[in-house]
Amino acid sequence: MILYDHAASSNCMKVRILLRQLELPFESVVVDLFTGETKRPEHLARNPDGRVPVLELDSGEQIPESGAILLHLAEGTPYLPPPGLARTRVHQWLMFEQNQIEANAAVARFMALTRRADGAPEVFADRRDRGRVAVQAVSRGLSDGRPFIAGDDYSVADIALYAYVHCADEAGVELLDHPSILSWLERVEATPRFVNDLAPIPSTGP
Amino acid sequence: MILYDHAASSNCMKVRILLRQLELPFESVVVDLFTGETKRPEHLARNPDGRVPVLELDSGEQIPESGAILLHLAEGTPYLPPPGLARTRVHQWLMFEQNQIEANAAVARFMALTRRADGAPEVFADRRDRGRVAVQAVSRGLSDGRPFIAGDDYSVADIALYAYVHCADEAGVELLDHPSILSWLERVEATPRFVNDLAPIPSTGP
Repeated sequence: MILYDHAASSNCMKVRILLRQLELPFESVVVDLFTGETKRPEHLARNPDGRVPVLELDSGEQIPESGAILLHLAEGTPYLPPPGLARTRVHQWLMFEQNQIEANAAVARFMALTRRADGAPEVFADRRDRGRVAVQAVSRGLSDGRPFIAGDDYSVADIALYAYVHCADEAGVELLDHPSILSWLERVEATPRFVNDLAPIPSTGP
Repeated sequence: MILYDHAASSNCMKVRILLRQLELPFESVVVDLFTGETKRPEHLARNPDGRVPVLELDSGEQIPESGAILLHLAEGTPYLPPPGLARTRVHQWLMFEQNQIEANAAVARFMALTRRADGAPEVFADRRDRGRVAVQAVSRGLSDGRPFIAGDDYSVADIALYAYVHCADEAGVELLDHPSILSWLERVEATPRFVNDLAPIPSTGP
């Protein structure tokens, strides 16, 4: 399989984590968002939304969207329960992650680290503040003492949420007030073959 | 089943559309976001993120997140293909919808209709502009002439995208440049038992 990838994208890291945990070999091909490669015709043919990650299967089919890739790879594995309420809880947190964590905390972090926040402080503050509210929701979700976000078992929902929650402080979203999140992050990192290989956002990024 | 619901929420309308198409009876219980009811303890116990919709099953279990509810209800029905690449295409567009359409076009529309945009013009413009980019991605997704967004068959991905694409003009996102979207909206509306019952956002909203 080929992963159209970027080392500094935590959306891409989600897929790298699961591929390694499933012990599936893959080739990483960098598509550089910082030089506009993600918006070129050859990449738009892979993903009409012009982003990474995109996973190319051995059949040649291409799958965009980190959450869709996680669900595709995890089908039939211990990382995704069978259809029913347990799987629905995984879906719940995958959807929440895309809608509230990624769209707010991840965007704010990107703006902060690329200095785009300096030119658009209102936009940055809006994304950061909504990111804080989203992290509170994660904390509330873990408040019943469950070990993982969707219940007793580690799943792709934990991988998805880990991606931008573990680095939320870089978006100005403090985690120290949320001990349940800090201990959950440790449990996620302790799962077999879990590797956090997120690279820094290039300081030369436009 | 009980749907914790709001007539002016298109996230809630997604669930109403599918429940009617599946001919499943439900009771609608309004949780009013405009009076803070979604953030009260009794609703946070249903959804740690304090939003509607939440679907309460006859077993008493409560499911938040429109996308998760759609997938739960559609399992085993013609509205969701079995596991495999066809289902993954549905997941792809559900994730995209939450991340790019809902988080941008829907937020911009809400800000415009509640006049919150007047007090935060930079934030509004950012969400609207990203909403325009997202609608272009939908247009690109439909550009190969497929009848529905995930392929040949109508699915919950069409319901999810319809929710905030059909009213994107109220967010300042023009659809007239996208004839493939306009004809797709008509095909979605022509599916059996499809009802668009989205109510206006109350002008008295804070």
